[in-house]
Amino acid sequence: MLLRVKRLDIHTGGPFISILHARDAEQLDVHYGDRILISHNNHKEIAVVDITHHKKTVQPGSIGLMEELQAKLNARHGAKVRISIIPHAESTIIIGKKMAGRRLSSQEFLTVVQEIVRNRLTEAELAAFVTACFIHELSDDEVVSLCKAMVLTGERITFRRRPVMDVHCIGGIPGNRTTPIIVPIIAAAGLLIPKTSSRAITSPSGTADTLETIMDVSLGINRLKKAIEKTNGAMVWGGALNLAPADDRIIRIEHPLNIDAEGQMIASVMAKKYAVGSTHLLLDIPVGGMAKVKSPSAALRLKRRFEYVGRRLGIKMRIIFTEGEEPIGNGIGPALEAQDILKIMKNDKTAPVYLKEKSLKMAGIMLEMAGKAKIGSGYKMAAEILSSGRALKKFNQMVEAQGRAPKSRLKIGKYKTTIFSKRNGKVSWINARILSQIAKAAGAPKDYGAGVYLHQHLKDMVQKGQPLFTVYAENSEKLKHSIANEQLDLIFRIT
Amino acid sequence: MLLRVKRLDIHTGGPFISILHARDAEQLDVHYGDRILISHNNHKEIAVVDITHHKKTVQPGSIGLMEELQAKLNARHGAKVRISIIPHAESTIIIGKKMAGRRLSSQEFLTVVQEIVRNRLTEAELAAFVTACFIHELSDDEVVSLCKAMVLTGERITFRRRPVMDVHCIGGIPGNRTTPIIVPIIAAAGLLIPKTSSRAITSPSGTADTLETIMDVSLGINRLKKAIEKTNGAMVWGGALNLAPADDRIIRIEHPLNIDAEGQMIASVMAKKYAVGSTHLLLDIPVGGMAKVKSPSAALRLKRRFEYVGRRLGIKMRIIFTEGEEPIGNGIGPALEAQDILKIMKNDKTAPVYLKEKSLKMAGIMLEMAGKAKIGSGYKMAAEILSSGRALKKFNQMVEAQGRAPKSRLKIGKYKTTIFSKRNGKVSWINARILSQIAKAAGAPKDYGAGVYLHQHLKDMVQKGQPLFTVYAENSEKLKHSIANEQLDLIFRIT
Repeated sequence: MLLRVKRLDIHTGGPFISILHARDAEQLDVHYGDRILISHNNHKEIAVVDITHHKKTVQPGSIGLMEELQAKLNARHGAKVRISIIPHAESTIIIGKKMAGRRLSSQEFLTVVQEIVRNRLTEAELAAFVTACFIHELSDDEVVSLCKAMVLTGERITFRRRPVMDVHCIGGIPGNRTTPIIVPIIAAAGLLIPKTSSRAITSPSGTADTLETIMDVSLGINRLKKAIEKTNGAMVWGGALNLAPADDRIIRIEHPLNIDAEGQMIASVMAKKYAVGSTHLLLDIPVGGMAKVKSPSAALRLKRRFEYVGRRLGIKMRIIFTEGEEPIGNGIGPALEAQDILKIMKNDKTAPVYLKEKSLKMAGIMLEMAGKAKIGSGYKMAAEILSSGRALKKFNQMVEAQGRAPKSRLKIGKYKTTIFSKRNGKVSWINARILSQIAKAAGAPKDYGAGVYLHQHLKDMVQKGQPLFTVYAENSEKLKHSIANEQLDLIFRIT
Repeated sequence: MLLRVKRLDIHTGGPFISILHARDAEQLDVHYGDRILISHNNHKEIAVVDITHHKKTVQPGSIGLMEELQAKLNARHGAKVRISIIPHAESTIIIGKKMAGRRLSSQEFLTVVQEIVRNRLTEAELAAFVTACFIHELSDDEVVSLCKAMVLTGERITFRRRPVMDVHCIGGIPGNRTTPIIVPIIAAAGLLIPKTSSRAITSPSGTADTLETIMDVSLGINRLKKAIEKTNGAMVWGGALNLAPADDRIIRIEHPLNIDAEGQMIASVMAKKYAVGSTHLLLDIPVGGMAKVKSPSAALRLKRRFEYVGRRLGIKMRIIFTEGEEPIGNGIGPALEAQDILKIMKNDKTAPVYLKEKSLKMAGIMLEMAGKAKIGSGYKMAAEILSSGRALKKFNQMVEAQGRAPKSRLKIGKYKTTIFSKRNGKVSWINARILSQIAKAAGAPKDYGAGVYLHQHLKDMVQKGQPLFTVYAENSEKLKHSIANEQLDLIFRIT
């Protein structure tokens, strides 16, 4: 059937949507949600069908195409396109296999991931796939297959020099911003480290959000390569690079469904490392009541799974378990975290001790992994690079190479409230989850200057009347809103 | 945030969709696929967000509402509506429980089903629910909960008289059209039988499609009740009655995903019986290579599950296993099946024997269930009602009460091809699945006159050159297409 294109300037951000008049839909025998193949010159795209009964929307003989689909088909308003009915996506059968609890081959993962990237799966199919992979947990081999499929369907970056260093934290702890300290140290030691980070999904700030208060992080592949040539290191937002694009769509489905599947998380992390050609990876798994991983046994299991995938991808890995009971730095929120980082880089005496120590330990391990430092002397080398100011110099070079951010982004919010201790005693518990919620309600990460500043950490001795934490906001309403609903007594336990 | 309504005359047939301009979306901090609450006067509806960057589609300050949503909100073009962000649907947490393999309570099923009926779940959420219920098979109690929830969220019909008889076949076999013969016999015996049937989903004809060649089957509840008052019996399309509307949405998701979940099937069948107030139900489970249920053990298991649900709903059930190796009647396709039925009603000597016998047996069981016939004498009473012409008289009364269909619908397609036996021997195997495909390709059920007519059944002795089956179509292209791709030798095995 030939139909005339009607442009509908609607952006769906997801699957390709077309709109048929009910009369044509009946003739084609397609229903709402069915898929059709639309051909125009050399372009063929698969689209989902919506139906209208109103000629004003789409007349019989015409087909309404939403934005992304017009662009892909390169079909102007009024152009004639050919419509045919297609069988189910190849993925449907594969998704059915997974629902039945069977293992999928690497070719099957590639087929599904290709169709995801080409927007050929409906929301329902994608959700069924993600749900089935969550319920019938992916085996280690399946994680490798999914990971490779995600890399093959996205951009890849290659560097001639070896080793290519990388570091990653699986997250869950606010204020755990080690990357911006580690990367300049490693680069200052002469090693290559093209580090990609994510923005916040559910947290008050991702590494990319924090760094954006200081430098441009939305670099494409070419600008990233140029920055690396100049300085050995880069810290960029992975989202601008189109690495493993299927992962973004999977996460977009997982997130509202509250799915947090271990296998997909491992594939997601490792795909991004593999895509930038990392040869050495230090992985930080925080363990504790406030972290994603609660128990040592779960941590060991996760370590084993990551190591297997690393071996299969040829990436040398070191995995460390770190403390996951409280925020590591003092700041939570983009500018407040950036403040912590700059203090550490500048060897400021008021810099947060735990964050500095953790970063130096991790940098030390990486220097040893790369053979830059002898076993046992990595920490010392990292500390020397930091205290000598070489790390700061490298950091500044990186800021110049990537582009400096407007200074205003580093401003802390001008509205604030401080919560004080009501008794003397020792801090025996800090609820990092509620602190994160407060920081988000105060405006982080969108308002760079919003967030929470911790005056005390676990095991610190406090006096009645001493400050425990301060909430900052750029907007007085948000400040009020952020702490209005919280039982502030529950956040710090003083015993 | 207050926004001005822009009408978009697009019918989605599914979830409520609204379109925001990117600028407003950013201010509200909502993304593609998020949900918002739209309030207008006393109406509140939840809608999914699409985003446009084009002012031509939706200007900043406006919100585009698709058809169903405008109607529900009763909001005119230009009206101001209030937008607020809402948390996830309550169902999300419940769906998460099911994904984790936990049993759901009846209250939880009710919550999910209510949100399905109110169109408050996204396609992804609905797919996750259906997938999770498929993988973690529903327990018998869960089936009862789902069933009751589906009834509570739809229309119900009540009759004062008792018993209310019902009959159902779980399907899978073409040409198994017993309902139109059984119902007039039961009604002629003075029993109430308000029978609802479905249209074809994947088959060449549903009972409703076949009956539509003779009478109007799209009756609303009032017309159904009036027809019943006059004649005791009715045979209508269930889809016009809005019984268990959640079931339709679940099936619409299951179908493209190729999910055929036993628990949901049981809930779906029983919900429709419960909603029309059936007190007695005869259930036909065909068992055999061509049926949905392949093995005696699967049949027994299914019987036990149906019986449990029937007990819990207070419906007296009899379940029979019938032969599922071949089509029961001779015709496959609306008019061809109707021809078989009319021949049986008129005691025509060329009427298909198996279909007549099966129908009489089933009607006999029902007469015994209702206490109309003594145990052991039901078949005899049914045969007497049929042979005396009382069944035909009742049938004609029902046609008058529901409304006679145009005569043209009973016309068999004028294009035909007959396939003849290439050898002498006994019919040892008939592939009903391929026959169904041929009937569909020939145009059934949309073309009433299209389909397949069987000249031979299993165990019949045939001579070389005798006709095996004839394909009928209303359109010569479809006829050619229907048998072009089929290996005709594979359909009948003569040994």
